[in-house]
Amino acid sequence: MAADCNRITALDLQPEGPLGERLEAYFAKCEEKLGFVPNVLKAYAFNSAKLQAFVDMYNDLMLGPSNLSKLEREMIAVAVSSVNHCYYCLTAHGAAVRQLSDDPELGEMMAMNYRAADLDPRRKAMLDFAVKLTERPHEIEEADRQALRGHGLTDRDIWDVAAVASFFNMSNRMASAVDMRPNREYRSLAR
Amino acid sequence: MAADCNRITALDLQPEGPLGERLEAYFAKCEEKLGFVPNVLKAYAFNSAKLQAFVDMYNDLMLGPSNLSKLEREMIAVAVSSVNHCYYCLTAHGAAVRQLSDDPELGEMMAMNYRAADLDPRRKAMLDFAVKLTERPHEIEEADRQALRGHGLTDRDIWDVAAVASFFNMSNRMASAVDMRPNREYRSLAR
Amino acid sequence: MAADCNRITALDLQPEGPLGERLEAYFAKCEEKLGFVPNVLKAYAFNSAKLQAFVDMYNDLMLGPSNLSKLEREMIAVAVSSVNHCYYCLTAHGAAVRQLSDDPELGEMMAMNYRAADLDPRRKAMLDFAVKLTERPHEIEEADRQALRGHGLTDRDIWDVAAVASFFNMSNRMASAVDMRPNREYRSLAR
Amino acid sequence: MAADCNRITALDLQPEGPLGERLEAYFAKCEEKLGFVPNVLKAYAFNSAKLQAFVDMYNDLMLGPSNLSKLEREMIAVAVSSVNHCYYCLTAHGAAVRQLSDDPELGEMMAMNYRAADLDPRRKAMLDFAVKLTERPHEIEEADRQALRGHGLTDRDIWDVAAVASFFNMSNRMASAVDMRPNREYRSLAR
Amino acid sequence: MAADCNRITALDLQPEGPLGERLEAYFAKCEEKLGFVPNVLKAYAFNSAKLQAFVDMYNDLMLGPSNLSKLEREMIAVAVSSVNHCYYCLTAHGAAVRQLSDDPELGEMMAMNYRAADLDPRRKAMLDFAVKLTERPHEIEEADRQALRGHGLTDRDIWDVAAVASFFNMSNRMASAVDMRPNREYRSLAR
Amino acid sequence: MAADCNRITALDLQPEGPLGERLEAYFAKCEEKLGFVPNVLKAYAFNSAKLQAFVDMYNDLMLGPSNLSKLEREMIAVAVSSVNHCYYCLTAHGAAVRQLSDDPELGEMMAMNYRAADLDPRRKAMLDFAVKLTERPHEIEEADRQALRGHGLTDRDIWDVAAVASFFNMSNRMASAVDMRPNREYRSLAR
Repeated sequence: MAADCNRITALDLQPEGPLGERLEAYFAKCEEKLGFVPNVLKAYAFNSAKLQAFVDMYNDLMLGPSNLSKLEREMIAVAVSSVNHCYYCLTAHGAAVRQLSDDPELGEMMAMNYRAADLDPRRKAMLDFAVKLTERPHEIEEADRQALRGHGLTDRDIWDVAAVASFFNMSNRMASAVDMRPNREYRSLAR
Repeated sequence: MAADCNRITALDLQPEGPLGERLEAYFAKCEEKLGFVPNVLKAYAFNSAKLQAFVDMYNDLMLGPSNLSKLEREMIAVAVSSVNHCYYCLTAHGAAVRQLSDDPELGEMMAMNYRAADLDPRRKAMLDFAVKLTERPHEIEEADRQALRGHGLTDRDIWDVAAVASFFNMSNRMASAVDMRPNREYRSLAR
Repeated sequence: MAADCNRITALDLQPEGPLGERLEAYFAKCEEKLGFVPNVLKAYAFNSAKLQAFVDMYNDLMLGPSNLSKLEREMIAVAVSSVNHCYYCLTAHGAAVRQLSDDPELGEMMAMNYRAADLDPRRKAMLDFAVKLTERPHEIEEADRQALRGHGLTDRDIWDVAAVASFFNMSNRMASAVDMRPNREYRSLAR
Repeated sequence: MAADCNRITALDLQPEGPLGERLEAYFAKCEEKLGFVPNVLKAYAFNSAKLQAFVDMYNDLMLGPSNLSKLEREMIAVAVSSVNHCYYCLTAHGAAVRQLSDDPELGEMMAMNYRAADLDPRRKAMLDFAVKLTERPHEIEEADRQALRGHGLTDRDIWDVAAVASFFNMSNRMASAVDMRPNREYRSLAR
Repeated sequence: MAADCNRITALDLQPEGPLGERLEAYFAKCEEKLGFVPNVLKAYAFNSAKLQAFVDMYNDLMLGPSNLSKLEREMIAVAVSSVNHCYYCLTAHGAAVRQLSDDPELGEMMAMNYRAADLDPRRKAMLDFAVKLTERPHEIEEADRQALRGHGLTDRDIWDVAAVASFFNMSNRMASAVDMRPNREYRSLAR
Repeated sequence: MAADCNRITALDLQPEGPLGERLEAYFAKCEEKLGFVPNVLKAYAFNSAKLQAFVDMYNDLMLGPSNLSKLEREMIAVAVSSVNHCYYCLTAHGAAVRQLSDDPELGEMMAMNYRAADLDPRRKAMLDFAVKLTERPHEIEEADRQALRGHGLTDRDIWDVAAVASFFNMSNRMASAVDMRPNREYRSLAR
């Protein structure tokens, strides 16, 4: 991996060991497919066990099998990150929404205020659930799950909405805690 | 695994495949060491990829190498869960604090209001950081990290405080989203 | 009253006069029935007028005639104290819920998040009212009272729900203001 | 007591028994000294035990011996009631501040925003404590009590500040819960 | 303009030029009609361009043609100012509500808690919208506008409700930022 | 003005009269300089008195003489709009920050979380003040103004920071109230 002369986080964390073959290959694949290794991965790379656990959970959630499209999962990610004002995730996942939707305006609306978007009722309900879960998790009740079922979501779909929203409540906080900086490449992506 | 006649979550999720040898062994080890399989694991068990990712991240964070003692990590878990009023995590991790500290009162104070406990300044600062990160992640600034350094935490320690606090912000939301019920065994543990 | 070697509050308040016969007798009755004098009473005991006023209001509200059962009044007390994260009241009244319900889990759920409990609609409505009154008293409107009437509560019942919830909004703040410590006996009660 | 043709609360509560001699005398004294019986007393009068308990606690707190002047206690009452937007208490106790201070402007500032008043540092600190205790009781720590001691308050004074602020957190909620209406007489008092 | 020996704001702003004929005439008209120049105008008077812009917007909004009566516009102004605890605006516009309604109690209720007033459903809906727009502007959705239309408001009426509420969210902040003091004359007006 | 086939707001407001020569010229100047008329102006254009008042106040504040640079005023505008999650203002003024600073990243950071930017202490203090004034206007005290003076701001500078922040608290609410849509041109500007 080429030296990155810009800081990635506010913490000074030296590598505690080699990445290992599997993660080296994963980084190479990132370079090949995206043109760069996302800084969140470099931030976790000081410890390969932590990086591997993050990559495994992330990839299952955002890329694994689900009735939610990849775009929908990214929309949830960005709407949650907007509540938490997370600079890293809004930048990286805002770009993903623009790219997957081929609609730059949609990416902006998710990042600024998802209520500004003209969403179909199913997607609106998904984001309403994700945002309530973010802001007032203790107030989620059966009625909230029923609202999603009323829009045709299965119980597995509800799990997936919840899991993505919950994951970004972790990720947003991790990024804010260490002042994680997004790769500059995201900014111009799919504008 | 013996049939559990009580519901574990509000969702009806049928197993999507076999657990696989590694996770079967892990469940057996739970039974052996704890006397039961924690319900959070059973809740994820409908999908072995999701369960494995959760177990890997959890075990690294809560049991892996760190300058934070296991008790300190559990204290962070419970203080965060108290802000989020998460019934599952307060029950399961409140028990862990009681057990690891041999001080049932400490477990109660973490669950009710960590400010009631007579903590040494380092632990107080760790919990203050974890709770601010929970309530107002976007307001974390360099001064917050400096406060931790001022109490002797290394940058790696700051990562660990942040990572545990962030993980439970995910876990609390997941548990609330699906109405996860804790195993009854926790309640009487280490009282 | 035997010397208590542990501090009860963060304030150093010397007795301003004798308790008087009536309150001495009341303390004796506490010792006899509970095995101890609740620390909140010892905290007020520096001034017998203040202690008497507190005891009179408390006993009328929590033990006096009402259509609300004693358990229901304690459930309201704990749900309110959970919002206010009051260590003293969650400990003392959490124990009371466990004891009166013979259901330790119910006590825990009231203290952690009352929404986790499987309550009948009338009790759920009572706690919803009490918690709204705690969090946003200025937003209570006729519709909120009508909701309670819709679950069969009389106007006197509404008064009682309001009075218990309001009292613990006082008591929680008093306990937090002086850092009141609960008697250790509560912790193991009715587990 | 003469019939009052205006409603006092939103609840229809019939007297459960006679007031009794002591409370009748108290009402007569109110009529004599104020020219009217405060509606809060009439609201409680459906049950003489509840009324007596309220009167005893109120009179001890607001009129009993304390290093806090009666004006200071009323200032705390109004600053707390402003946070809680309590129409009854702002009207009744706003009048009391105007009257006791002979400064109508001070009454208005307490009701609208106590930070607008040019208070001496001791009074400012008292109100800051009372308002924090109202808004975020669980965040009160030793540093908050020390701030008061730094302005010359004794531990007994701290108790009194806390007790008045806590009482109005009860009273504000009771008034909002039942939609209590203040006597019209308050409005023109000491303008 | 007669010298005002009391400070009007916390800022020391010297006149940057003459008021000019038009504004001098406007001040004279204030003196004539009200008996004084409102301090908010004196506060802006250090710069005639700023003063003129403020006067033009204010007069169009509060006095210009609209289906909302002048009283209704003032009611919105005061309900918004109550949320923001703005001492200046509550004083000046509270007086306007008292005067325009010939109902001093209505002025007090708007300033303390508009929910205490017995409003017709159209006015209640207008204030509910104005207060939601004040507290959580990003949560306004089509349903909120539809609620107003359901009470007979035209789209132009909705614009006017929004414009008055929005203006006072500016004005409240300006007054708080510079600690603006209301003219004493307001206090006794229309009591 | 060429027909705009897209809706600009959620309200159906027909022109109440001609724009008049002065505003027609202003619109022409917008077309010439920007290539389009900002939708906020078209939204107000149903009533020329309202449009003129808005234009006059806006132009004085954002383009008139001030020690704050135009970039600094836009930074305040965007940081305030981020708190209020205003889609219109984040889009239009985010573009202005990108353009004036020639630093697209700075625009993104203002819109997402101004705390992510590496600002000099004076600018950081200005934005801290603007955001506090937005979130908790009633808590502004002399200490907040003193903090700005400590960074070299004159009282006139404080007025300007306050005025810009206050104006966008109006504008954000107006845009949310009517669901104002930004011109598509902003999105690609100065990326």
